[in-house]
Amino acid sequence: MPARYPSFRCSVPWLLLLLQALFLSCSFFAFPADGDIYSPAYFHPEFQDVNHMVIFGFGFFLIVLRRYGFSSTAFTFLLIVLGVQCSVLVEEFLVFLGVQESEVGLQSLAKAMVSMTAVIISTGAVLGKANPVQLIVMTLVELIFFCVSRYINSTFLQVLDRLSLMHVHLFGAYFGLAVSSRFPEPRPGLDKNRSTPKSELFSMLGTVFVWVFWPSFNSILAYSKREAVLNTSLALAVSAVAAFMLSALTSKDGKFRMTHIHSAVLAGGVTVSYTAHRIQHPWIAMILGLLGTVITILGSHCLQRCFNPALKLQDTSGVHFTFGLPAVLGAVAAVVLSVVEQGIEIQWNDLSSLGFLVFVDLGAFCQTISTALITGLITGLILNTKLLKAVHVSKYFDDQFYWEVSFKMISD
Amino acid sequence: MPARYPSFRCSVPWLLLLLQALFLSCSFFAFPADGDIYSPAYFHPEFQDVNHMVIFGFGFFLIVLRRYGFSSTAFTFLLIVLGVQCSVLVEEFLVFLGVQESEVGLQSLAKAMVSMTAVIISTGAVLGKANPVQLIVMTLVELIFFCVSRYINSTFLQVLDRLSLMHVHLFGAYFGLAVSSRFPEPRPGLDKNRSTPKSELFSMLGTVFVWVFWPSFNSILAYSKREAVLNTSLALAVSAVAAFMLSALTSKDGKFRMTHIHSAVLAGGVTVSYTAHRIQHPWIAMILGLLGTVITILGSHCLQRCFNPALKLQDTSGVHFTFGLPAVLGAVAAVVLSVVEQGIEIQWNDLSSLGFLVFVDLGAFCQTISTALITGLITGLILNTKLLKAVHVSKYFDDQFYWEVSFKMISD
Amino acid sequence: MPARYPSFRCSVPWLLLLLQALFLSCSFFAFPADGDIYSPAYFHPEFQDVNHMVIFGFGFFLIVLRRYGFSSTAFTFLLIVLGVQCSVLVEEFLVFLGVQESEVGLQSLAKAMVSMTAVIISTGAVLGKANPVQLIVMTLVELIFFCVSRYINSTFLQVLDRLSLMHVHLFGAYFGLAVSSRFPEPRPGLDKNRSTPKSELFSMLGTVFVWVFWPSFNSILAYSKREAVLNTSLALAVSAVAAFMLSALTSKDGKFRMTHIHSAVLAGGVTVSYTAHRIQHPWIAMILGLLGTVITILGSHCLQRCFNPALKLQDTSGVHFTFGLPAVLGAVAAVVLSVVEQGIEIQWNDLSSLGFLVFVDLGAFCQTISTALITGLITGLILNTKLLKAVHVSKYFDDQFYWEVSFKMISD
Repeated sequence: MPARYPSFRCSVPWLLLLLQALFLSCSFFAFPADGDIYSPAYFHPEFQDVNHMVIFGFGFFLIVLRRYGFSSTAFTFLLIVLGVQCSVLVEEFLVFLGVQESEVGLQSLAKAMVSMTAVIISTGAVLGKANPVQLIVMTLVELIFFCVSRYINSTFLQVLDRLSLMHVHLFGAYFGLAVSSRFPEPRPGLDKNRSTPKSELFSMLGTVFVWVFWPSFNSILAYSKREAVLNTSLALAVSAVAAFMLSALTSKDGKFRMTHIHSAVLAGGVTVSYTAHRIQHPWIAMILGLLGTVITILGSHCLQRCFNPALKLQDTSGVHFTFGLPAVLGAVAAVVLSVVEQGIEIQWNDLSSLGFLVFVDLGAFCQTISTALITGLITGLILNTKLLKAVHVSKYFDDQFYWEVSFKMISD
Repeated sequence: MPARYPSFRCSVPWLLLLLQALFLSCSFFAFPADGDIYSPAYFHPEFQDVNHMVIFGFGFFLIVLRRYGFSSTAFTFLLIVLGVQCSVLVEEFLVFLGVQESEVGLQSLAKAMVSMTAVIISTGAVLGKANPVQLIVMTLVELIFFCVSRYINSTFLQVLDRLSLMHVHLFGAYFGLAVSSRFPEPRPGLDKNRSTPKSELFSMLGTVFVWVFWPSFNSILAYSKREAVLNTSLALAVSAVAAFMLSALTSKDGKFRMTHIHSAVLAGGVTVSYTAHRIQHPWIAMILGLLGTVITILGSHCLQRCFNPALKLQDTSGVHFTFGLPAVLGAVAAVVLSVVEQGIEIQWNDLSSLGFLVFVDLGAFCQTISTALITGLITGLILNTKLLKAVHVSKYFDDQFYWEVSFKMISD
Repeated sequence: MPARYPSFRCSVPWLLLLLQALFLSCSFFAFPADGDIYSPAYFHPEFQDVNHMVIFGFGFFLIVLRRYGFSSTAFTFLLIVLGVQCSVLVEEFLVFLGVQESEVGLQSLAKAMVSMTAVIISTGAVLGKANPVQLIVMTLVELIFFCVSRYINSTFLQVLDRLSLMHVHLFGAYFGLAVSSRFPEPRPGLDKNRSTPKSELFSMLGTVFVWVFWPSFNSILAYSKREAVLNTSLALAVSAVAAFMLSALTSKDGKFRMTHIHSAVLAGGVTVSYTAHRIQHPWIAMILGLLGTVITILGSHCLQRCFNPALKLQDTSGVHFTFGLPAVLGAVAAVVLSVVEQGIEIQWNDLSSLGFLVFVDLGAFCQTISTALITGLITGLILNTKLLKAVHVSKYFDDQFYWEVSFKMISD
């Protein structure tokens, strides 16, 4: 067994070198002519916010495991910087194929950053179980598949590209779940996959960060930024209140549970991500925020007791209920809202056009979720071949396996 | 005794549900017609800064107690999201009564966020002693009373609403003090209400956050933003230098004391909050910053030795000297400055108009502070009735009482 | 021996008082007439970013030592607030001498903040070894010498002031090295100058902060902000990937080493700091980022094994390879790029003008580095005179020497 680890470790730097060389040479050929790259409208503050949220917030959001603080933060960071470059080049390649209009500069980086969120969410599902080689391969594969899924949506179903990007949460969560189902389960008595108060405090720090910046995330690509910011803020506020309420209701003797707070305060932001830019009444956003939290907390109980054991899933950070379920709810809500809106406008006369609207929206939703599940399963199978040197179950959730931590255990 | 705790815990979620349902239905009726809500000028970056500062900064600023990290951060967060919704609706109600002009969208959220600072400051005074039900009730009551106090200021004393909002620090500190005076004292030998180096490092993190964003806080509602930003920055810089200076001077054998740094670096920002937008000479802002720190550090020694024991006050985070005293100084400085400015303009001729100015400013100050003290006392009495199930003294300052922390003590 | 400590401690507050009084009285006389100070274009968001990055990011970036968390964060904070005031006044003095145009308000604060980075970098080299008095004296002396060096560059070598400011990293690193060479070495067996996982996690937090805000830092003074932001982002992304790659390649059995990640992810930002605003092809920025990381990680191995022991240097935070080497590379790259650009423009005809270009750029580089080394050595000698009461080696790296930490050791 020990013979396998050195070889896996040796392959990480070469894989990184190969990828980076590829990106560099692509960027040499693929980027558009001078001047163009730097020309788009200046939207630095929002871009900075999203940057900040994805790198800093999600990095610390994922520090929930006792002995996995370094890896959670640093691997997330590595995947983001790799993935953003990869995502920019995949987009460039689509432009080269004539499939998509060219978008340049910060706009392109912002889209890449939003796409990366899908990967970070998937990473949460396999946190502590996948080694860096597997994570890097997963990042590349997922970004390509997400891009393909968006391409299908925008070409065959006429979904706007900006809306299609908002499927990140859905795609990320179900892709991650499908991948994680192919990883062997850790033994039940394992002590390392629990959290400590210190790691939860750091994770709370990350959660609050993500929460504060979520309005920028939902509005960065929207045309009507004000609506997006305000509706997302309201949904998040209601969501946070509901998270405390339901956490106290569902846990033993009315105490709060930190993991509920972590996952449920963000549910509102995920739920309104499809609709934040076009909700015209604040109370709709607030109700969506409330429903998002309800589905997250009830989901966390149901899934962890019934669904995950039945399917032998091990969803380390609970991405299924944190991002998956609210995204499903949000997608359904988007269909309902657009039907009602359109229906009121045409006074419920031309029902066939409404049917087409429902068909398109539900089609995009079903296509995204099934692509995520199928490609996730395939990716999970590939990741667990001998070639990629899966980590032995006894080495799960341990920084010492990847980092030079000579002296003392982390955090105890 | 144990029979009381379950009942208190059961009431938290229902209280939250009730409030949230109330806010939702109010928002359904109260918000103005479509379009209006989303129309104001776009000032997202400053709004984001203040958002960030209040939620993230104050949340971590309050982690000073050894075993109270979760509660400090999470309850602050809960109170903010509840309070902002409440504050928006109270403002809407005032608009409905015709008392105040309508302000909408982000502007309204920003004002709500600023008002919430008062509640956070008050929370600091009863940190670890009040249970969530008490904190929620205190939030609602305090927001309503603060709104009433502002209404009196702006209607009877013709103080501009924006200026009147800057009484948050004053109102928050003295309201909190009055409330905390009604809580039973913890036993002297209690070990849980002290800090550890780790909790102080987190608290330092929060302090630095609040410090960095304070210029945005002081400028968000000001007309002359540049002046407000620059003057606040200068005052804060001088304040920080003076904090180190006085901390070394007043402590035993010249060592620094972290609690001094925590409280005194912010004193400058509080002191200039009334005047930052209209100071025309940087040195005035700098002197105000210096005086703010002096009063804070001297105050912290005097109050903790003489005043608090005499009045049996227990001010957990020292809000009296951190926010109360500098706010008093700032209010006095505002009067002096406006008299001198006005006096120079009219060449000290029309002294009766100067007298009127002094009367108005001092009136607003006295009205605010006395309203805060009286309503605070009443709130404190209400909070300690049997109905709200006060926490027993032996359960003070303990996360385990509110959170499912099964395995290990926090931080030791 | 113990007799010396009280006297050193007594001098800190008086030194601070003296300086603050000096700054206050200077600001009274030196600031330009009313109105002018507050007039420049409003660039608050970038300014806020840099503010945030320098104070929060660098403060936590420097928490690497086990028992030195309070001092790292708080002394950095103190030096920044002192140094910014000092730097503004030195600039004012130069304006008074007619040497430089007046720049006012936030612009002037922003330049002061950028200059302060040099001091923070130097502080990293003597972290844990210098006492507050020494640090304060070093701050003042370094800011003045850096200003002189910039003045020489802009007057005799016609380097633009904005470019000249970008020598901060170079100046800071070599000044710090020269200063630290004059401090007595700690005994080899000392246990206190190592890091713990917790301190490294905090340091990672700071690093990610600095990384996220670096594009704002490089663009704040540039005319072509878009280019600066985009190129810096790309260089930093490549740099981060390369840091992981080389860390795994160079360490024993392929594990990652946290100190490599800390120092090398920032190398790209330092390397492109001279050229970010005028690189026209993203791949150039990416290659510079890659080279920056290579030189940092190779440098960290070479310097720590050969160079530092030979010269008896003790560079606590490794500023030589973190900031020094990438800055040298960046300066050389700037010369090459400008020669190639200019050469292509004039079709390699007028070679003497190219020679002049090289002479000017290399001249500025050599002048800066030699000024830094010489003045650093002198400063180091001054700091270790009896007057400034150097800390005894046994008291190095210990918070307890400066802070009232009565109860427990930090962090163990």
